[in-house]
Amino acid sequence: MSIRIGICGYGNMGRGVETGISNCPDMELVAVFTRRKSGLQTKSNVPVVSIDNSAEWKNKIDVMILCGGSANDLPIQGPQFAKLFNTVDSFDTHAKIPEYFSKMDASAKSGRNISITSIGWDPGLFSLMRLYMGSLIPSGNTYTFWGKGVSQGHSDAIRKIDGVTNAIQYTVPSESAIAKIRNGENPDLTTREKHTRECYVVAEADKSRIEKEIKNMPHYFDEYDTTVHFISDAELKENHGSLPHGGNVIHIGKTGDSHNHAIEFSLKLDSNPEFTASVLLAYARAAYRLSEKGETGARTIFDIPPILLAASDAARIIGELM
Amino acid sequence: MSIRIGICGYGNMGRGVETGISNCPDMELVAVFTRRKSGLQTKSNVPVVSIDNSAEWKNKIDVMILCGGSANDLPIQGPQFAKLFNTVDSFDTHAKIPEYFSKMDASAKSGRNISITSIGWDPGLFSLMRLYMGSLIPSGNTYTFWGKGVSQGHSDAIRKIDGVTNAIQYTVPSESAIAKIRNGENPDLTTREKHTRECYVVAEADKSRIEKEIKNMPHYFDEYDTTVHFISDAELKENHGSLPHGGNVIHIGKTGDSHNHAIEFSLKLDSNPEFTASVLLAYARAAYRLSEKGETGARTIFDIPPILLAASDAARIIGELM
Repeated sequence: MSIRIGICGYGNMGRGVETGISNCPDMELVAVFTRRKSGLQTKSNVPVVSIDNSAEWKNKIDVMILCGGSANDLPIQGPQFAKLFNTVDSFDTHAKIPEYFSKMDASAKSGRNISITSIGWDPGLFSLMRLYMGSLIPSGNTYTFWGKGVSQGHSDAIRKIDGVTNAIQYTVPSESAIAKIRNGENPDLTTREKHTRECYVVAEADKSRIEKEIKNMPHYFDEYDTTVHFISDAELKENHGSLPHGGNVIHIGKTGDSHNHAIEFSLKLDSNPEFTASVLLAYARAAYRLSEKGETGARTIFDIPPILLAASDAARIIGELM
Repeated sequence: MSIRIGICGYGNMGRGVETGISNCPDMELVAVFTRRKSGLQTKSNVPVVSIDNSAEWKNKIDVMILCGGSANDLPIQGPQFAKLFNTVDSFDTHAKIPEYFSKMDASAKSGRNISITSIGWDPGLFSLMRLYMGSLIPSGNTYTFWGKGVSQGHSDAIRKIDGVTNAIQYTVPSESAIAKIRNGENPDLTTREKHTRECYVVAEADKSRIEKEIKNMPHYFDEYDTTVHFISDAELKENHGSLPHGGNVIHIGKTGDSHNHAIEFSLKLDSNPEFTASVLLAYARAAYRLSEKGETGARTIFDIPPILLAASDAARIIGELM
């Protein structure tokens, strides 16, 4: 029997889940849930359901993948859905993760469901690697770098500036900082030394004011070396239309008096939302299996036994992958 | 209360565990168990116990770390110790892992203990990464490279050749093969194309016969391009005395029609036995916690929730690492 999947939210990530499910022979997409009132047509032609009618689907869906945004959608939708369905989400507002987790835990327990929260790559796989690396070689430092890739949050922040009609922002890791770390220098790095920011901006006029506003924007840009390029809308669509991303987690640790060990995990992604969607699907499999065992409540990526992610059975995995 | 650790076998890895425990504030070393009849002095001055008297220590040790060899020691010692103690081992004879695992499972269950088997980096962390990568992006290929590093098995094989007094063998990954993979070419690689072998050999005479015997040795060398250097015993000790190792697991996978994703995990280790020992200690923590929960039987690295490896508590980990 297939694991019956629902998607809530049909943006980049929701469409990524729809695409990714074709690589999961043990799953089937049942319906897409949306706030939109009408007119949504899915690529796979599954039914489109208003989220107001979700409760009617309670026994028709094994895992609901929540693809809404962390700022406005998930804080409301997450706890509501966790009462009705097993869920997986990519809640990524770092500072609010503990609060969100406990709300999801309470809701999931009250509905006797499993909710796996903050899945993706950071938070997500990178968090997991920070845990593994620091636990395996406790005496050491872990560094995280992001990029080169598009930051949606920073792109949005630029788009809100008066006079800007469109913008894309790339986060770029410092190759020289990474080289120092790989070389075992264990450097203390400032925010400015770790990443730079490259902005591609479409604007008719006021370019010098816009550039100044970007570079001085608190939190987003003021602590970084930022480059601003003004380009045409056509050029933006032509050359900056995809959403690549990636990054590295590097741990340099020590055993004994003098032995250094470098552990590194890196991602290079053509499409950030499709990759994240594929990770969500693997954790949906884990949510289903935990729920089938009768477990309830919220879980993070740290709690999930890796074997629960695999489509094949344990004996085959030990034989083939060990 | 500290987790009370025993070490069985006092070779390179046993001494690595003894060294590594100083980085684990929640653990204490209680005793070292050995087959040797007398004369063993530990660096930490803990008692040295004959393995014949292990049963007397049943209630004094929480986890026994089995540091014997996979060829001769673990197949005998593993099942015996699993009846008496929670255990962690690094059993690494790939073809015999399923058989060893089921023996350990039966023994651990009969003694109501937990045994975590085949821990280290390959089998171990690399196995884990192959599982994660293939599960997260199912449509793709996973490649494993080892080195540059000393292979004990290959070094031993050379030492058994008539006329050889000492030898060290390095496994060297092909940088051009790795570059092709990172470049997304998904190449089909033969054994010869993935690694080369470099041998440093001490021998008085018969060098051309020895070189030929090495290069044609079935399984170990005949499928590889092998270089043989004859050096003095002094030079071997001076330049080839440490045991570095490392490697890469690389997965190139696809989502949708055209988006490629590269996931890579790499290790660069100054000391293979000390790194492996440090990994064993983290999994000893997991074994202890599973046993405290009342679980019994054998587990692989695939079964262990990552959170069980961490020395700090879950709330702090979510706050700091997520």
